[in-house]
Amino acid sequence: MKLQVAIDRVTLDEAVSLANKLDGIADIIEFGTSLVKDYGFYVIKETQLDLKNSQLLLDTKTNDEGDYEFKQGFNSGADILTVMGSAGKATLDKVYKVAEQAHKTMLIDLMGLDQNSIKKIANYPNAIYNLHNSHDAGQMTGATAAVAKFNKSYPEIKRIAIAGGIDLKQTKELAKQGLTDVVIVGGKIINTDNPVESAEKFKEIIKSCN
Amino acid sequence: MKLQVAIDRVTLDEAVSLANKLDGIADIIEFGTSLVKDYGFYVIKETQLDLKNSQLLLDTKTNDEGDYEFKQGFNSGADILTVMGSAGKATLDKVYKVAEQAHKTMLIDLMGLDQNSIKKIANYPNAIYNLHNSHDAGQMTGATAAVAKFNKSYPEIKRIAIAGGIDLKQTKELAKQGLTDVVIVGGKIINTDNPVESAEKFKEIIKSCN
Repeated sequence: MKLQVAIDRVTLDEAVSLANKLDGIADIIEFGTSLVKDYGFYVIKETQLDLKNSQLLLDTKTNDEGDYEFKQGFNSGADILTVMGSAGKATLDKVYKVAEQAHKTMLIDLMGLDQNSIKKIANYPNAIYNLHNSHDAGQMTGATAAVAKFNKSYPEIKRIAIAGGIDLKQTKELAKQGLTDVVIVGGKIINTDNPVESAEKFKEIIKSCN
Repeated sequence: MKLQVAIDRVTLDEAVSLANKLDGIADIIEFGTSLVKDYGFYVIKETQLDLKNSQLLLDTKTNDEGDYEFKQGFNSGADILTVMGSAGKATLDKVYKVAEQAHKTMLIDLMGLDQNSIKKIANYPNAIYNLHNSHDAGQMTGATAAVAKFNKSYPEIKRIAIAGGIDLKQTKELAKQGLTDVVIVGGKIINTDNPVESAEKFKEIIKSCN
């Protein structure tokens, strides 16, 4: 299981400085939607971000104009970009094609989608599907139960991510369960006194369960 | 009926220059999602944009972290910000509160929403509800029929906007029909040889039907 650390609602300088320190500890470093919309692709591209061992995810949460947004996002240095499952098939088809051609990855954010809608978009084999409790709706409860249920409903989906208030205990349970490809942790790492140390703790827990 | 002109997928300098020329012709000037994500709120705030008679809409297409995004968007000079209807009630409640407190406006993008989902979010009296054919899904057909059907289904919604490939003929029909608060025109104005002249034509058609 990979560890994705989400950085959000800080200045870009702080985000870049923290990301460079987390390089190689987190498998994936996320610059959240707030950083994308506060600073934009062009400014993000020009930072001193220097990731040698971690991938960069920009949480674009694309809804439309998929082709344009994904090309811009990958051009700005991202390895992974995100699209809303609710955007619908026309957009998903477009961004998947852009991601595949660039040998990069799309993550589908399933926030707010019902079962029936997920069924219609379960056919992108290389995509990551993100079970996501919205920030506004509050903390995730029963992460492993949610993953187990999702895996049973969509056995064809191989790459599952989970996000939304995930803590160390839930991370351990998810790692043991072995169904999740990426655990996404934000506040429980970033809003601590020592985010690097906190990320290391999450990484150790995951390793110990492998 | 108000005319909103949507500027998208150009450089910010071009957008600002065009917006300043459209000031007072368009009732609302939209900087599309591409401009928000390419350049970000902070850069947009520092431009030479100088609108004396038109309102500025930033097409944020907010999905989550509503409170933060709407505060940042209004701080960067927007009069109107957009939120995805698919974001769900928790986010909509938050952004509506931010908009009301700032004496500004939220536009709800209904792209991809089914009837049942719209019913759940029909209770924001000052919001604009945008019937929106996605860019990726292609051009709107039967704009007046779509508005008539929507108005019949949700008579409590007073402010309707419509977007997605709207042309001069459809604009005339919508103005005559008298149910639409804002017609949103993008390519049919922006992708012409003389966007200012094109916008004037749309504005004249609307005026002639008042």
